[in-house]
Amino acid sequence: MTVPFRHEIQRRYGDIDQQGHVNNVVFFDYLQDARVALLFSVWHSTMRDLQQVIVHQEMSYKKPLLLALEPVVVEVWVSKIGNTSYSLAYRVLDDNGDLAAEASTTLATIDPTTGRPARIPDNLRVVLEGLRIEA
Amino acid sequence: MTVPFRHEIQRRYGDIDQQGHVNNVVFFDYLQDARVALLFSVWHSTMRDLQQVIVHQEMSYKKPLLLALEPVVVEVWVSKIGNTSYSLAYRVLDDNGDLAAEASTTLATIDPTTGRPARIPDNLRVVLEGLRIEA
Amino acid sequence: MTVPFRHEIQRRYGDIDQQGHVNNVVFFDYLQDARVALLFSVWHSTMRDLQQVIVHQEMSYKKPLLLALEPVVVEVWVSKIGNTSYSLAYRVLDDNGDLAAEASTTLATIDPTTGRPARIPDNLRVVLEGLRIEA
Amino acid sequence: MTVPFRHEIQRRYGDIDQQGHVNNVVFFDYLQDARVALLFSVWHSTMRDLQQVIVHQEMSYKKPLLLALEPVVVEVWVSKIGNTSYSLAYRVLDDNGDLAAEASTTLATIDPTTGRPARIPDNLRVVLEGLRIEA
Repeated sequence: MTVPFRHEIQRRYGDIDQQGHVNNVVFFDYLQDARVALLFSVWHSTMRDLQQVIVHQEMSYKKPLLLALEPVVVEVWVSKIGNTSYSLAYRVLDDNGDLAAEASTTLATIDPTTGRPARIPDNLRVVLEGLRIEA
Repeated sequence: MTVPFRHEIQRRYGDIDQQGHVNNVVFFDYLQDARVALLFSVWHSTMRDLQQVIVHQEMSYKKPLLLALEPVVVEVWVSKIGNTSYSLAYRVLDDNGDLAAEASTTLATIDPTTGRPARIPDNLRVVLEGLRIEA
Repeated sequence: MTVPFRHEIQRRYGDIDQQGHVNNVVFFDYLQDARVALLFSVWHSTMRDLQQVIVHQEMSYKKPLLLALEPVVVEVWVSKIGNTSYSLAYRVLDDNGDLAAEASTTLATIDPTTGRPARIPDNLRVVLEGLRIEA
Repeated sequence: MTVPFRHEIQRRYGDIDQQGHVNNVVFFDYLQDARVALLFSVWHSTMRDLQQVIVHQEMSYKKPLLLALEPVVVEVWVSKIGNTSYSLAYRVLDDNGDLAAEASTTLATIDPTTGRPARIPDNLRVVLEGLRIEA
């Protein structure tokens, strides 16, 4: 499978907890930055009226991450597209390419004027389809 | 249902992101502090030989949290006990008692000398049973 | 000296770094929360047109902070009032009342329409005078 | 002046606060990562017996930092070398090369067995001299 988007994350000293590993919470920071970079790269000005909220996230931790100068790689792709929500899937890889975690985030599209769930706009749907990988 | 453990979390200015809400990642910080407080309260010195790692976490976000002086409440209980792992369930409540998120964490017990999964020791199992709520 | 404002800060597991202490950066988070709580307690709606920016901060670290359930106490007072800026001074105390750090922040008041330094408004000046302690 | 060490920092979405800027506290995270990278690059195994603690930090904020894909650059050099302590100076630059902040950190060398201030070891002193810039 060819993953459509790869994002490199620079580790920080502050990511490391008392046990000497990247803290479990910080892994979700890594997802967030990969997601923001992905959306930034595909976002069109016509999508400006769209608002999104995270409705669900989950992560399976496979291998601890240590502090290192080399970046962590986060692979992201679209795993599911519904009417008013879609899901991103992630693989977090350490500097040897080993799998450190697998994760997913489900986002709901919202009409910013009403705050109610809104149908994914066609231009976003097209973009998401282009990033989709069938499980 | 009577939840066996409730932990109050003080919000911080730094928890709030560009959208004016407690950031999705910070919710996992809140779980972590509730979990640490729970384990601290039940931990015995005879459990010192035990090491745990988080193997899975998930969260469903229900309502945004804003900055406020009143604490967020996290309710925690044991939802599942296996041979070498157990699960905690959480409810994150805002200062009106409204549900902001539901979540769970699965932890595996590890033999620190071998790094291999280890049977939950009997004294921890007794403690976990006392915090268990059937779904 | 009677300090006009004391704020309790709950420590978090994530505050602790690889060396087992509250990380030096997190101390500035503690200042921030004490400052926000102070300003929140004295702020009037007539001050809404005011914007402030931090222009300088400094901290002397005296004693490491460890993880504990008891709160850290931050004492804050106004140490200096100028034309377009003022300074807050802080003492960070551990749960024994021992001094962990001394610090200060200088804030400049800004006209939000022009972005230029603006004279401290009279109603804020009155409030600041009430929180002032001569060195 | 030729700065002996430049470190690039990747901004994170979580660095941004409610006002849309990199939060004042996060600037100290940037210093920390530049400092860790510097010390990592010059550290010799013979320095293993050395422990350091931060005794003072200060920062003057010059220009807000926004979220951007381009890195922030932190320049670091040694500004002062004493008997049992030394100081690092920093310039934080945005992606246009504009000065966002100037800062310094003073670190004390400690004998890890006694916890008392210890003379800077000769091998560290040589390294620090090589990174020194006269003010």
